[in-house]
Amino acid sequence: MSQTFQTTRRVEFRDTDAAGIVHFSAFLVYMEQIEHEFLRSLGLSVHHPLEELAMSWPRVSVHCDFKGPARFEEILDVTLSIARLGSRSVTYQFLFERDGTQLALGQITAVCCRVQPGQPPKSMDIPEWFKEKLLPFVDPSLTP
Amino acid sequence: MSQTFQTTRRVEFRDTDAAGIVHFSAFLVYMEQIEHEFLRSLGLSVHHPLEELAMSWPRVSVHCDFKGPARFEEILDVTLSIARLGSRSVTYQFLFERDGTQLALGQITAVCCRVQPGQPPKSMDIPEWFKEKLLPFVDPSLTP
Amino acid sequence: MSQTFQTTRRVEFRDTDAAGIVHFSAFLVYMEQIEHEFLRSLGLSVHHPLEELAMSWPRVSVHCDFKGPARFEEILDVTLSIARLGSRSVTYQFLFERDGTQLALGQITAVCCRVQPGQPPKSMDIPEWFKEKLLPFVDPSLTP
Amino acid sequence: MSQTFQTTRRVEFRDTDAAGIVHFSAFLVYMEQIEHEFLRSLGLSVHHPLEELAMSWPRVSVHCDFKGPARFEEILDVTLSIARLGSRSVTYQFLFERDGTQLALGQITAVCCRVQPGQPPKSMDIPEWFKEKLLPFVDPSLTP
Repeated sequence: MSQTFQTTRRVEFRDTDAAGIVHFSAFLVYMEQIEHEFLRSLGLSVHHPLEELAMSWPRVSVHCDFKGPARFEEILDVTLSIARLGSRSVTYQFLFERDGTQLALGQITAVCCRVQPGQPPKSMDIPEWFKEKLLPFVDPSLTP
Repeated sequence: MSQTFQTTRRVEFRDTDAAGIVHFSAFLVYMEQIEHEFLRSLGLSVHHPLEELAMSWPRVSVHCDFKGPARFEEILDVTLSIARLGSRSVTYQFLFERDGTQLALGQITAVCCRVQPGQPPKSMDIPEWFKEKLLPFVDPSLTP
Repeated sequence: MSQTFQTTRRVEFRDTDAAGIVHFSAFLVYMEQIEHEFLRSLGLSVHHPLEELAMSWPRVSVHCDFKGPARFEEILDVTLSIARLGSRSVTYQFLFERDGTQLALGQITAVCCRVQPGQPPKSMDIPEWFKEKLLPFVDPSLTP
Repeated sequence: MSQTFQTTRRVEFRDTDAAGIVHFSAFLVYMEQIEHEFLRSLGLSVHHPLEELAMSWPRVSVHCDFKGPARFEEILDVTLSIARLGSRSVTYQFLFERDGTQLALGQITAVCCRVQPGQPPKSMDIPEWFKEKLLPFVDPSLTP
C-alpha cells in the first residue's frame, strides 16, 4: 500500500488570466513547487550538494490534463504520488481537486543528474539513501 | 503534403531560472503564444466574437519533452504543425530547435467552446470556415 | 502606535532567474499576494461583491528598492504596514528581510473602485466598514 | 536634443489576469525586456563578458505608474529614454502608449557591477565605451 503526500495550494491573483480562471501554465508551476515541498518534507532538496559537485533534477517531460477551472483565492487539494521510480529518473503524479472535484492531473519526469559549473548536467544513478525515501510513495497501479 | 508555421522566439531573462537555463514552464507559455501567433497569421483569433457569445479554446491537455537547455538571449526556431484536427478539438505540435538541435517537442490540445459571461464554457463543433484554415497544417504522420 | 501584519514567503524555483537569485518582478508579485493575505486576515477580499456590482482595487503605482539578493528555498520575513490611507486609495508598504537583513522595501498604491462587467472601473470612496479595519495598520511615520 | 528608442510589445495571454487586463507585474517584465532589446540595438548586452569576469546590471529600484488598462493582443508603443546616467548606474524610463493614450510610465535603475561566480556583485564605473553609446539617449528634462 503506497503512501501519498497531501498538501494545498491557494490560487493567487497572478495565477489567473483574462478568461477569469487559473492559466494552464500555473498548474505546471504548482506541480514543481509541490515536488520541492515533498522533497523538503523528506529532508531532501531538489538541489543537493554532493562533495565537489551537486545533484539536481532537470525535467525531461511534463504532462497535464485539465478537467475543470480553478479561480482566484480557491484552495486546491493536491495529492502527490510516484508513478515510476527508475534507476535514474522519477515520475511524480499530481492530482488537483477542489471539494472532491478533479481539476487537473499531471506528471513531471525528472532525471537525477550531477551538475558542475560550466558543464552540461550528466545523468547518474539515484543514490540509495535518496531512493529509499521515495520508495514508500511509489504507486505501482500508476506505472504506465 | 502538409504545411507548417515557422516562427522564432528570443529567450527573455524572466524565462530563465537559477539553473541558468529556460524554465520548463516558459516553453509551455511560448507554445500558447505561438498558437495565438499562428491563428493571427490566418486572420483568426483564439478569442473570436460570435453574434451574442464568443468562441474560445480552453486547453484540455498539454505535454512537453525537453531534450536540451536554452539560454538567455538565444533565438529559438519553432515549427508548428497540427497533429490532430477533430470535430471539436485541435492538437497543435511545437518543435523548438536552435541551430538544428532539437530542444523541446510539445503539444497542446484545445477544445472549441462557446463562452458566455457567468456560464461554464460549452464545447461546440469547430465552424467550417475556421476548420478550413487549419486543414492545410494537419500532418497525418503526427496523428497518434 | 500602529500595528503591522507579519508573514513569510518561501522563494520558489520559478521566482529565480539565471543570475541565481530572485527576479525583481517576483518581489512585486509577492507584494500583491501579501496584500491579499493581509485583507483575508481581516475578513476582507481584494475583490468584494457589492449588491449589483463589485468593489476592486486596481493598482495605480508600484515601487520597490532592492537591497540584497534572495535565493531558492530561502524563507523571507515580510512586514506589511499602511503608509497612507486616503479617502479613495491605500498605499501598502512591504519590508522583506532574511535573518534581520533588509532585502527589499516596496509600496503598492491601489484605488478603491466599483467595477461592472463591460465598463471601466470607477473610483469610489472606501466604505467606512472597510476603512475601519485598515486604520490600525496606518503608520504615520511612513506617510511621505 | 536627446534620442529615444522606440519599439512595440504585443500583449500575450499569459500577461493578463482575471480582471481581464494586463497584470501590473507584466509591465515591469516588459520594461526589462525592452531595456535588453535597447542594449542589443546598440551592440551591447545586459550581461557582458569582461576578461576573467563579467559585467552585469542588477536592478536597485523599479517604479511604475499605471494610467490605463491594456488588453490581450493589443500592440503597445513603447518609448525608452534615459532619465539619468551616473558614473555607476543608469535610470531608464519607459512610456507605454496605445493609439496615443498613455497606459504606463515606469523607471528601472540598474547598477553596473562586475560579477564572479560564487561572489556577490561589486559595483564598478560604467566603462567609457559603454557610456558613450548610452549618452545620446539621456534626456536632461527627465532627471529628477
